[in-house]
Parts: sequence; C-alpha cells; structure tokens
Amino acid sequence: MTESTVESVRDTTAAEVDAIAAAAAAAAGRWAAMALTERARLLRDIADRLDAHAAELIPLAMRETHLSEQRLVGELKRTSFQLRLFAQVVLDGDFLDVRIDTADAEWPMGAPRPDLRRMNIALGPVVNFAASNFPFAFSVAGGDTAAALAAGCPVIVKASPGHPAVSRAVGQLIAQALAECGAPSGTFGLVFGRDAGVQVLTHPAVAAAAFTGSAAGGRALYDLASRRPVPIPFYGELGSINPVFVTDQAARSRTVEIASGLLTAVSASAGQLCTKPGLVAIPEESAVFSELAELIRSRPVPTGDMLNAEIAAGFARSVEQVRAHPNVELLAGGGPGEALLLATTARTVLADRDALLHEMFGPATLLVSYRNTDELLELARSVGGQLTVSIFGDQIDDTVRALTAAAVGAAGRVLWNSWPTGLSVTFAQQHGGPYPATTAPTATSVGTAAISRFLRPVTYQSVPEDLLPLELRTDNPLSVPRSVNGARAQ
Amino acid sequence: MTESTVESVRDTTAAEVDAIAAAAAAAAGRWAAMALTERARLLRDIADRLDAHAAELIPLAMRETHLSEQRLVGELKRTSFQLRLFAQVVLDGDFLDVRIDTADAEWPMGAPRPDLRRMNIALGPVVNFAASNFPFAFSVAGGDTAAALAAGCPVIVKASPGHPAVSRAVGQLIAQALAECGAPSGTFGLVFGRDAGVQVLTHPAVAAAAFTGSAAGGRALYDLASRRPVPIPFYGELGSINPVFVTDQAARSRTVEIASGLLTAVSASAGQLCTKPGLVAIPEESAVFSELAELIRSRPVPTGDMLNAEIAAGFARSVEQVRAHPNVELLAGGGPGEALLLATTARTVLADRDALLHEMFGPATLLVSYRNTDELLELARSVGGQLTVSIFGDQIDDTVRALTAAAVGAAGRVLWNSWPTGLSVTFAQQHGGPYPATTAPTATSVGTAAISRFLRPVTYQSVPEDLLPLELRTDNPLSVPRSVNGARAQ
Repeated sequence: MTESTVESVRDTTAAEVDAIAAAAAAAAGRWAAMALTERARLLRDIADRLDAHAAELIPLAMRETHLSEQRLVGELKRTSFQLRLFAQVVLDGDFLDVRIDTADAEWPMGAPRPDLRRMNIALGPVVNFAASNFPFAFSVAGGDTAAALAAGCPVIVKASPGHPAVSRAVGQLIAQALAECGAPSGTFGLVFGRDAGVQVLTHPAVAAAAFTGSAAGGRALYDLASRRPVPIPFYGELGSINPVFVTDQAARSRTVEIASGLLTAVSASAGQLCTKPGLVAIPEESAVFSELAELIRSRPVPTGDMLNAEIAAGFARSVEQVRAHPNVELLAGGGPGEALLLATTARTVLADRDALLHEMFGPATLLVSYRNTDELLELARSVGGQLTVSIFGDQIDDTVRALTAAAVGAAGRVLWNSWPTGLSVTFAQQHGGPYPATTAPTATSVGTAAISRFLRPVTYQSVPEDLLPLELRTDNPLSVPRSVNGARAQ
Repeated sequence: MTESTVESVRDTTAAEVDAIAAAAAAAAGRWAAMALTERARLLRDIADRLDAHAAELIPLAMRETHLSEQRLVGELKRTSFQLRLFAQVVLDGDFLDVRIDTADAEWPMGAPRPDLRRMNIALGPVVNFAASNFPFAFSVAGGDTAAALAAGCPVIVKASPGHPAVSRAVGQLIAQALAECGAPSGTFGLVFGRDAGVQVLTHPAVAAAAFTGSAAGGRALYDLASRRPVPIPFYGELGSINPVFVTDQAARSRTVEIASGLLTAVSASAGQLCTKPGLVAIPEESAVFSELAELIRSRPVPTGDMLNAEIAAGFARSVEQVRAHPNVELLAGGGPGEALLLATTARTVLADRDALLHEMFGPATLLVSYRNTDELLELARSVGGQLTVSIFGDQIDDTVRALTAAAVGAAGRVLWNSWPTGLSVTFAQQHGGPYPATTAPTATSVGTAAISRFLRPVTYQSVPEDLLPLELRTDNPLSVPRSVNGARAQ
C-alpha cells in the first residue's frame, strides 16, 4: 500500500449545489429538445476529448488510484468507446420505443380506440454517484453519465473522493464539449463532498439517481431517495460476491485452468472489481486446492496496490470478519501484493450465511469445499441476489441444469466456464441483479439497455400531426423504428 | 347514496397469508418455466370463464358497487379483452427483448467480446392491491393480474374491501382455470383485509407490488415496500387531478361541446375514475361558464350512486376542503345524483396550490378562470405530476405549443380536444405519470407495455446451446423477435 497521493479538494457548498441543481433544471427542457443528431454529437465530442487528453489523464489517474498504466489505458479506451456506443444508440432510435395505434372504431373493447402515439422522453436531471474503482468508466464521463445524456437528461456527478483531480479534469472536458455543441451549460454539473451528494439527491430538481459502491452506502442513499416528499428511482449497484460453482467433472478435467484463471480474476485490479469472484465452490479433496496453493508459491500473480487507505482498511476489516470464523482457514497467499485464499466447507457457509456470504472488496476469495451434489445445489440456491454466477462444468447433466436454474434465479448474468471480471459494454450485456446486488433488479447499469433507466413514456391522444414531435408523425421524418398497431414497422 | 350491500368477509389470517405466499414462492419456478403457449392458454381460459359467468358476476357487482349494468357489462368485456390481449403479447414474444451479441474478437473495447444472450424473465411473485372503482378491470382478474401472469409471475391479489363477493367469485374462476391448464395452484392467491395486505407486501417471497388507489394509502404501502430488508419495486397509481386547459379560441368555437363533454366526463361512474377531470381552466367571462350552469339546470346528467359509504365520505371531505376556501364558489350542481361545479380564479389556485390542487374522488370539478395567456401557462406549469393533461384548442399557435410542452412535462398522457376518461387498452397506451400520479414514472399500468413491470433481464455468457433457454438459441425454435449485434432480426 503506497501512501495516498490524492490532493484535498474543497467540498461544494450548499449554495453552489443549489445553483448547479437549478441550472440542471433550467437546462432539462432544452437538452431534451435538442435533435438526436446533436445529442449524439455531444457524446462523440466528449469521447474525442477523452482520447485526445489521454496523455494528461492517465498519469493523473495513476497517481490518484494506484491502478496500473495498462489497466487505465484500457479503461479510458472503454470509456470513450462507451460514449460512442451510446451515440449510436441515440441515432438508432430504438430506445424511444415508438408505438402508434391508429384510431379504430372496431377495437373489441366496448369503445372506439382513439389515435394513440407513445414514445419515451427524458426523465429529467439525474445524479450520478461515481465509483472509486473505475476513475474513467464508472466515474464522471462513465456509463451512467453516457446513458443519462443519451436519454436527454442533464447529469450532476457526485465525484468519488478517491480521484478528485481526474474528476475535475474530465468534468472540464465535458463542459468544453457542451459549449462546442451548443448544449446548455447546466446539462452537466460536478459536486464534491458527502453532504453535497446528499443535497443533490434530495433536491426537488433531481428526477433519478445512479450509484455504484458499497452496500451500506448504497442502501443509505436508496433510503434517502425513497423518503423524499417526491420519491425518485434509485438505480444502485451495491456489490456482489459473484459465486463460482465448479462441478466435480470440471474440477478434474480443468484443474490447472480453473486454478490459474481464479488467481488472475481475484488479483486483477487488486480485486477491487464488483465482479470479482468472492466465493468458489469446489469438490472436497479436489486437486484444485493444492494447485492453487502451489501456484501462489511458484508463480504469484501481483495484485498491485489498493486504491486508497480507506478502501484498504475496509478490505482488511471484511477479511478479518471472514477469517475470524472458527471454521475458516488460510489456504494460501495474503502476503504483500498477493491474493488471499481462505477456505471453509459448504456446511459451514450454509450454517452461517450472514457472516460468510459477505463481500471482501479486494484481492481475496473464499474457497468452499462441498461433499456431494446436494450440498453444491443447496449452496447455489442460498447465495442471494448477485451480479453474476459462474458455472464451471463439462458434460451438461442434471447437476449442471440445476445449477443453471439456481444461477438464473440469483443473478443478472450467468457464465459458463468463464470468469465474471472483464465486463464487456455491448447490446446484450446485463450488469444488475436481485437485491442486494442492486436496488433495481429490472435495470442494467452497463450496456446499451442502461439508457432505459432515465426515460419515461408519454402517450399523445388524438393530437394533430403538426403538434406531434417528429418521432411520432405519420410520415416518420426521422426514420425511427416503431410498432404500428402492435406490429413492428419501419 | 344507497346503503351498503357488501357482505362482511373474514380477513385472511396471518397463517393463511404465510401459506399463500409460500405456495406462490413454490409455484414461481414452475409457472415461469411453462411454455409461452401454455401461459397464453391460461390467460384466454380466464377470459372465457369471465365471459361465460357474466350473468352471475354482473348482478353481484351491481349489488356491491352500485355501478350501472351497462357500465359493468362494458367493464367485464374490457377485462376479458385485456386478458386475451396479454395472451397475444405472450405469443408475440417482443416482451422478452431478446438480444444476442455474437463473440467478437475485434470488438473495439480493448478486450474480445464474449457470446452474450439476454432476455427478460419473470421477476417473481407479485402482490396486486385491487382498486375499488373497477370491480373487474382493476381488480382480481384485472390489468395488473393479467400483466403479471403474462410475465410468468405468480400473483397474490389483496381484494378491495368494496366488492368481496365479486372478488371471491372471480378468484374461483381463476383457480379453476389454473387447474384446467395444469399450472401450479400457488400461481394465484387471494387475501382479504388490510393486515393481510401489509403482510403479503412485506413477505420475503414477494418480488413486486402493484397498487391503484388513494395517494395516502399508496404512499404508505410504497414506504413499506421501500423499507423492507429487501426492498421491492412498488408500482403505485396514486391518483390525479387530470387538468384540462381550454384556450380562448376553443372556448369560443367549441362552447357547447366543451360544456356538455365536461359534464359527462365528471358525471360518468359518479366521477369515481382516476382520469376524471378535476380542474378545468377556462378564460374568464367565457360563455362556457354560463353554458355549464344552464346545462346542469336544463339537462342534468345523472351521476349514479357512489361505490360505498367510505368513498362517499372521503369525497365529501375533499369537496369540503376545496369549497371552504374563501375564493371558491359554487357555480352549479351538487344536488343529489348531480355533478358539482366549483369555481375559482387562476390566481387563487397559484397562490394556494396545496389546498386547491387536490383530488376530489367523485362527481366534482373545479373551474378555474384565467385572465390571460400568461396566467394559463403559469397554471399549466404548476399542476405537478398527473396521469393526464388535456388541451382544448383550435389553431396551433405559440400558446398551444407552450401548453403542450407543459402537459408533456407533467403527465403520462396528453390529449387534444378529448376527455381523459375512457381509457383504451392498447399497445400505445400510457397510464402513469410523474409523482404523485404514480410512484414509478417509468412504467404504465394499462396497455401491453404494463408487462415490463414484472420482468428482469438475465444475460447468459458463453453458455452452450443445449443449456440455453429456447428463446436464446441460435436457430430460434420459438421464432421470437430479437436483435443480433444491435440490429433487429427475425
């Protein structure tokens, strides 16, 4: 652990927060009304600026987060890619979910059907609580910001305390892009400090919130959002253990592959990933255990430093809670910059779930030995809401089918012979899952579907063409995809 | 107001609620896994049974709700139609939102893209709090039940205390349909009593809630849902004033049409509709005022009786609150079985919004005279979250455009020269809106899109064909609509 190199930044004052929220409210109508081509242009302009300033941003992020240059270069690339992908989503227009019902006197409901035209519109200003572990991809210009801007919503980012200089630098690039694209300056705001975040979340101008972080912090903010006089949707991603279930067959046929892949997945980014596997079920007396111990001794995977002292201390506390359990032992590792492997049995976990089904945000995992298929399946059905569940198997037999059913019941993403780290930003991605993985199991925070969180539908009834938005006009001047009378048309 | 003719029904006990919730939890996996054709068959079977038992159900509902035979015949028809429409939605498969990303080593994100396949699955058991004012369409076999069953979720209905015998009779028809279709009996449950409703809502087995009713009741239940150890989505439709804005041009050119249409919209079903217009802005000294007073005298529209004594008392209290205001006067009506027209000025409403922007659930409306366009627009921008906003206009000028923008900002449905009552169940319908109209502005409770409330997405990563659900297999054996690599395919 190196010393913290984060400069101290003044918290945003209450008056400044008020002004930023008022500016977002004032910008909301104009930003939502700008042409889809202009929205896409802004997203691409931000992406271009990020890429153009990589040489300044990367060293700043290295200093503030201790993440490696290679990791940060990849993350910045992912971030600008993500902005461009949302530009494409905006231009495609599918997110508008345009539906047209033509008037129908014969509609079999007892009354004539009027002309009804429905589309999604922007929900209003969004507050985005940035995560600490991805200074680009889940921060100021990250996925939540990209999705909200794409939806036509102004965004106020509550900066992570872990990388204020990067946050400020990226915020300035966004402000320049807004000016260049003629978007109202209130379309983007940036605040620092815990109190400022709470003030934005509870501000009447704000219509939705997105959060990536700890379970305790996320639940506290969810509670604030729900207790407002006007409650707002709170899309919180609160963390996950990401269980991995290794069948007996896979443990035999893929021993080295599993041991080595697990070490990499636990060590990458010092284990500070919301998809890090934190529990791995392995048949008792499997060679995977000895292989893991041997690998740590013979071919250690360096974890790198942790993000900051606060996160390192939180990791140490969570590890201590698990390790203090009388039936948990140290299998291997745990030295400086080295992954930590703890071990216990499935019956111990099943008997003491609250203590042991517990996220350790750092380079540690709990190996759980099971005696038979019944224990494996009972464990799989007991893990609670998760972002991911992974299955390592060989033949597709009843055990594998039962594991898959349990995985689908617990998680937003189910993986086969793959590790859950390395989340791809795509059309079919799902990053979410039942509580406590998220506070909104119906949503995703990564991938193109993430835009849905910041939209609400409006239906126009019997409104003349000239008064309709372009997206809903009969001649479809913007060529947006749509359904007419329940059938897909173009 | 006739006397209550509702038989007294024993509240469901805590032990019975536990058993019903446990049965729903046990049924969830099997019901969700049944073929889409079987799901559609159940919905149609319920619809057929409702139609076949109309001769018993209608008189029962007339006795319990005092609604007219004609209204109830139409409502039952709408209810069976709605079930069949959701059967069609299930068979169409669009609600699954299937997205497939093929593996792509060149995906420009810094890492290869794995094979990802995403679809919506059932969220789990749903509790549906039935409304009092639609004993069929928003009750035991109503829209929320149809949408949840279509999504593959078991449903537990908390019966309205206003029509227990109808609720029980419809519940028996659903139970018969489940047995006939081979669905697990726990797929549907019915509970009576306030405590039972709270117990279901806070039961760990329940994954989502739908509610139609009063603002106070809905907010209390929303708070319970949000404060659970595992919070769940609460889709509450809490009521609305449904403002109507009449431009000066329309008040001149459509005087009689507006006055007469308004009286019908306020009187229908004794004004006990969530879309009843409760505020109508009219230019001061417009002939609409005198026309309305004249119509009430010369050609009264009978309102019919109210649903029950509790609702009549609540209506009287809400009317009294508005009428007690020093600047509110009685324009006309208010006799037995007659609509009540109160009148005030826009400046009074703007000065005292909390007291006057207030739902009166019954046959009353507040006519608001405005002096000029500025006052009209200020009022339109001040009404808060609504299910509907209606505009009566003539030429499409700047005033009409500004009114429309304000309407879209406030409501889920915007109407032109139409009354908001008479909600059609269609593909493009939107019944929802910003708080306090609903607790979930991103959703609708009427129309085919209502199914989305009870779904959550799951992504399968690198899962072999044989382990994938049929909906996600490459050869698409169920022919469900899908997107592949971001483009719509079939």
